[in-house]
This record gives sequence, structure tokens and C-alpha cells, in this order.
Amino acid sequence: MMEMVLHPRFEIESRIKRLQSRMGDLDGAVILDSVDVAYFAGTGQEGLIYIPRDGQAVMMARKSLSRAAMESPLPVRPLRSLKDLRSELRIQPGSALGLELDVIPFNHYTRLMRVLDGCKAVDVSETIRHLRSVKSEFEIGLTRQAANMVDAGLACVPDHLTEGMREIELSSWVEKTMRDLGHQGAIRFRRYNHFLPLGHLMAGENAAIASYVASPTGGQGVSLLQPQGAGFRRIGRNEPVLVDFAGVYNGYTADETRIFSIGPLPRHLEEAHAAALQVEEVVASQLLSGRTGRELFDIAESEGARLGYGDHLGGPPGSKCGFVGHGVGLEIDEPPVLGPTDHRIVPGMTIAVEPKMIFPATGVVGIEDTFLTTEGRPIRLTGFQSEIWQV
Amino acid sequence: MMEMVLHPRFEIESRIKRLQSRMGDLDGAVILDSVDVAYFAGTGQEGLIYIPRDGQAVMMARKSLSRAAMESPLPVRPLRSLKDLRSELRIQPGSALGLELDVIPFNHYTRLMRVLDGCKAVDVSETIRHLRSVKSEFEIGLTRQAANMVDAGLACVPDHLTEGMREIELSSWVEKTMRDLGHQGAIRFRRYNHFLPLGHLMAGENAAIASYVASPTGGQGVSLLQPQGAGFRRIGRNEPVLVDFAGVYNGYTADETRIFSIGPLPRHLEEAHAAALQVEEVVASQLLSGRTGRELFDIAESEGARLGYGDHLGGPPGSKCGFVGHGVGLEIDEPPVLGPTDHRIVPGMTIAVEPKMIFPATGVVGIEDTFLTTEGRPIRLTGFQSEIWQV
Repeated sequence: MMEMVLHPRFEIESRIKRLQSRMGDLDGAVILDSVDVAYFAGTGQEGLIYIPRDGQAVMMARKSLSRAAMESPLPVRPLRSLKDLRSELRIQPGSALGLELDVIPFNHYTRLMRVLDGCKAVDVSETIRHLRSVKSEFEIGLTRQAANMVDAGLACVPDHLTEGMREIELSSWVEKTMRDLGHQGAIRFRRYNHFLPLGHLMAGENAAIASYVASPTGGQGVSLLQPQGAGFRRIGRNEPVLVDFAGVYNGYTADETRIFSIGPLPRHLEEAHAAALQVEEVVASQLLSGRTGRELFDIAESEGARLGYGDHLGGPPGSKCGFVGHGVGLEIDEPPVLGPTDHRIVPGMTIAVEPKMIFPATGVVGIEDTFLTTEGRPIRLTGFQSEIWQV
Repeated sequence: MMEMVLHPRFEIESRIKRLQSRMGDLDGAVILDSVDVAYFAGTGQEGLIYIPRDGQAVMMARKSLSRAAMESPLPVRPLRSLKDLRSELRIQPGSALGLELDVIPFNHYTRLMRVLDGCKAVDVSETIRHLRSVKSEFEIGLTRQAANMVDAGLACVPDHLTEGMREIELSSWVEKTMRDLGHQGAIRFRRYNHFLPLGHLMAGENAAIASYVASPTGGQGVSLLQPQGAGFRRIGRNEPVLVDFAGVYNGYTADETRIFSIGPLPRHLEEAHAAALQVEEVVASQLLSGRTGRELFDIAESEGARLGYGDHLGGPPGSKCGFVGHGVGLEIDEPPVLGPTDHRIVPGMTIAVEPKMIFPATGVVGIEDTFLTTEGRPIRLTGFQSEIWQV
């Protein structure tokens, strides 16, 4: 761990070829979003990429041009002004161009289409997102490091968890531990208006508080204006402490949740935790090539109901979160979603499975691990022990 | 500090009235961006706000509806589906509606305009941003707390700074200190594709490395894909350690930079630091109602040149960052920009002034403080001692 990893040329070339092979009727794609630029160029510097349907992709870099040129295996040219973009890139009038219409701000779109006068924009985001959902060996290697990072974050909890400390004080230890190992200090969401600290850590009923975030758990947070995750609540005895964090190493994410407690938990929460482990095991056993997100969600729901937790798994009736897992990568909300979707599992996906049992006014137990799908059974990348850790 | 602050009703009402009084030809505004929703509703829950030109604004909340209703002084209604939005809000066909076109993703815009069929969208972002740039007593109180928070973050540096430690390890102490005091764990940028950890901390030449970020300083970062701020570089003796962080308390920001060192710095850096303090003092003395961003930038540039630092202030020739200060608030890149802009200073603005002297291949010295403008001279909110702190 703890180094800046350059992208090999073949990695970048293969990503671009995969997009080119999925372009359908498009003449090319103009990539603006920093996450997708990072994916296709191997650099986080500011700029855009033009990927023609055939031929050489090019990065037009604004800042820092010299860093982009040093980091990216692509040819890098200066992006001085949008004005000359079409002639510089030799884009024909009337071209059909893929753009990331789910994330590009309206004004950016307008400015870009003005200089690409006569071209037609087609949303290419779903194609890119599905392409990104299948990871290369290079990406899997970084994800394994992210899994080690979040394991280390969770492992520091027993060293610090004491009665009466605030949620935020425990959370900041986990954050510090991961930052020291090279966490980039932010989690990237594709979804508009979604922001997280590095994870969320909540005790007792605080974990069951709903929030704006698309997650089975919410939390009070420390500010009404970023109302999610750890808050100022003090941690008591005999209540579940939910510790849910994402390791991010050189851009790649591994998501993991464990439950800690000071002294034993009430019996019904221990039983619900065991049920969540059982749901995870059943879902993991079916995380096989060819399965769909919907099938895996149904499997989780059936197993939860069979065990008597239909009203707790993923939330209480009326507030169920609607999924039991999600892809992770450069963003934390990647396909496949293990929810009512037709996303299909193929080998090489990194998927967080998170059956959690919500007890409003009491707390949350359950688990989350990041799995790598293969030709056969999936491999669990996150490795912290699954049982409730009692200090 | 360390509590969740609810917004008083008069605060929210006055914000909405100020926007209504600036609506010009608009019939109303539909606010989608979470930062602006937070500003006008006093809650960070998911949803949108409709502010008619006259009459009662309403929040349409998606998640969590119950939290939004508890937190916001506005009437809160459930946002079940966009479909019925126009009839629910009684928006007349043909209305001219303000939207935040600088930040709303293209697909969100399209979906919204489909349900607001027959209405015309006008970009209302600049109006909102300028309105937000003038802070109320309530907001100034929170900004003062944010200033205390970042002061505390900087104050922990001498306790931890030792030769051979990595930049990221020192950075994570500052981050932990601020998180424990209630930092929300993220800094919000309005500018597309901009993300930061809680600040940036770099030693020696690393501080002078350019990056994608709109800032006089860059830094290597820990990942090519989030390439900014503290990296894995080890901190040595006799080199400047730039510590630049933003405290954020209940949404509000105070930005501050100080220089630390192990042992003395080379004489030319000490002199450059003194010159930066002098530039700050001159700018602060002119941070007066009626001045424009351009005038203040020119004042900084002239003073820098007069002192012999024209090739260092804000960056070397060809790589100058182009501003010497910026407004801070719910976002860190607010107006007024103290750069070549006609943004005009009025009382009640919170402005970070940051003259920094960049020596490529050597390091960065300089300062940043957050000031509050008044009817007379500005008040410095951040309070850490300005000299280089030598351990």
C-alpha cells in the first residue's frame, strides 16, 4: 500500500477499446466527468477526453497539463478554449456524440453543444457505468488494497471504543486510520446531491434514523445541512454500534460494515445479527454469473422473511431501502444494484452485499462485505470477523 | 460548539423574501441543488423547493420526509413523483421559472422541464450565489464557530509534527481534531468536478505542485484519481509545511492557512512569508464596502510586485492562480472572488484572503485568513498566530 499507482498503457487502451466496441450508432464520445476522465485517461487532472468510434482517443487537459501528460498513457493536448474543440478534434458536423447526460450540469452541456454545433448528443452514461462495473486484474488489485484499508479501519474500533465517547470521536479514529493508509479523503457518488464522509458510525437508535442518503441506515450527522452518519450522541453500554466505512485506495472502493458493542446486546439483536449473516451467506452463495440483481434481491428478501425478519431487513415496512447490495468501484453507487433491476452478474464485479436489520428506536445490526464475482463462487475481499465484537 | 443548529423561522423567511425581491421577470424558482435547498429550507434532506414570486414557499421532500418536516420552518409536503408537480404547486403554463442551471445535471433538467411543460427555464444561480454571499447574524455566528474549529485544527500541528512523518499522517491529525468538533467531513464546491478532503497539507516542493484544483497550491495527493493535497511524502527539516484547512460548522466555512517548520527555514522563504503577511494586511485594510474584487486583486498584485514577489505571489509566471481571495459559506468557492471580477464588497461577507508565495521545486509560504466585512474595517475571524511556527 501507500504509493501512487500509475495506470499501465494496456489497461487504458483496453478500457477505450471496450467503450468503442459498444458505441453502436455513435461517432464518438466526449467525456467530461472527472470520474470517467480518470477511468479512461488514468489521471485525475482537469480536462476532457474525446474517444472517436475508431482510432486514437485524446485527452484535452486544462490543469495541470504537465501532470496529465506525465500520468496519462493517452496523448495529452492543452485545452485552452472550448471554441476550437470541434476543429482540433476533427469532429464532423452532424456527428452523434455520446455525453454523460446524467451528471453534466446543464450549462456545461449548453456550452459544449454550442461549440459542437450541428452535432447530436446521446446519453452514454449507462454504457460507461456498465462497462466500469466489470473490473480488470489491475482494478481488482487496487480493490483488494481498499479492502485491507477498511479492515484496518474497523480493527481500530476496539482500541478506542469506550462508554460515553461521542459517535463522531470514534468515527474520526476510523477515518484517521484509513487516511494514514492512503484513503483519498472522499467517497464519490454518481447520484446527484449525494455526499458522504468516509463512512457512517452510529450507536443505538441513531443508526435507525432515516436520512437523505440512499442506504438502509441513516444517522443524525453533525449538521442539519450534511445530515448523515456519526453525530454527537454518546455511546452507551449494551447497544449496537454500527461501523460502516468505505476504504478507497487509488480511487477504488471496498465497503464493509461490522457491529461492535460495550457489553452484551439484548438477545433479540444478537439473533437478528445471526439472521443477517445467514442472509449474506445465502446471497453470496448465489452471487453467480448469469444471476440478475432482482433475483438476488428476491433471494435476500425470501431468506429474511423465512427467518422472521421481513419487517426489519433493509428497513421497516414503508421505509425499506429497496436493495441488498450495490457495485463499488471509482464510485460507491455503481451497477449492479441488487434490487429490482435487471443488472446481470458477470465475473469480475466488485459488489457490496449489505443485509441489515433495522429496529427503529433501538438500533441496527447486520453486516456488509465486498465480494468479487468469478467464473465460479465469489471471493470475499473484506476480511474482518463477522460476529458482533464485544469489548 | 457541538450541537445541531436549527434554523430560526425568521432566518428562512428573510432568505426567501430576499430571493423573491430579486426575481425580476421570473414567476418563481424551483430549487434542486442540495446546498441551495439547505439554504432556503434549513434542512439537508432530499427534495426541492418551490419559491413563487409572491406568497408562500414550499418544500417538497422525498427523504426523509419526517426529518425535513421536523427541521424546516417551511411547509413540507411529500414529493412522491415529479409527475404532478405543476398541478400540486399550481404553476401556470408559460411561467418563467428560475433554475440552478450551473449545477443541475442535464437529465434532471430534462425530466423537470417535461413535467413543467410549457414553462421557460432561466438560470437563477448567480442571483442565489450573490444573495448567499451576504451573511446574516445567524450565519456569521456559525462561521465564527467554524473559525474556532479550524484554529483548533492548526493548533494540533505542533503536537504531532515530527521529522520523517508522512504528510498524510499529519493531515489526518488536523482532520480528526476538526471532526471531533463537529466538522461535517466534506467541503462543498459549487464548481463542477471539484472535490477536496478537509484541506491540504504539503511539505517543501510538494506544496508547489500544480493540480486540477482552482487554488494557488496543489499537492500530490495520495491517488492519481484524487490528486490533491497531502501525499505520502515524508516531512523533513528546514522546509515549509503548508497547512491549509477549512473548518465547517453546521454547514458554514472558515478557511485558514499557516506555515510550520521543523527547524528554521532558509532566509529567502522567511522573507517571502513576511511579504505575504504584508500583502494580507494591505488587502485587509482595503476590504471595504464598495470595493470590487478586481480592485482588491490589483492591490494585492501591486503590493506583491512592490515587495519584489511578482513572480511568486499566487504562482510563478504562466501558472498564476488569478485570485487572492474568495467568499466562503455553505460552499468554499462563493462570491466575491478577489480576482478580475466586478464582485462588489458589501458588509456581512465572509471572505478568505490568501496571499501565498510559490517557489517551484522549493515550497510555499504565506497565509490565509477568513475576514468578515462590516460597515467599517473588516474583522479577522480566524485567529491562529500569523508567523511561521517553528518546532
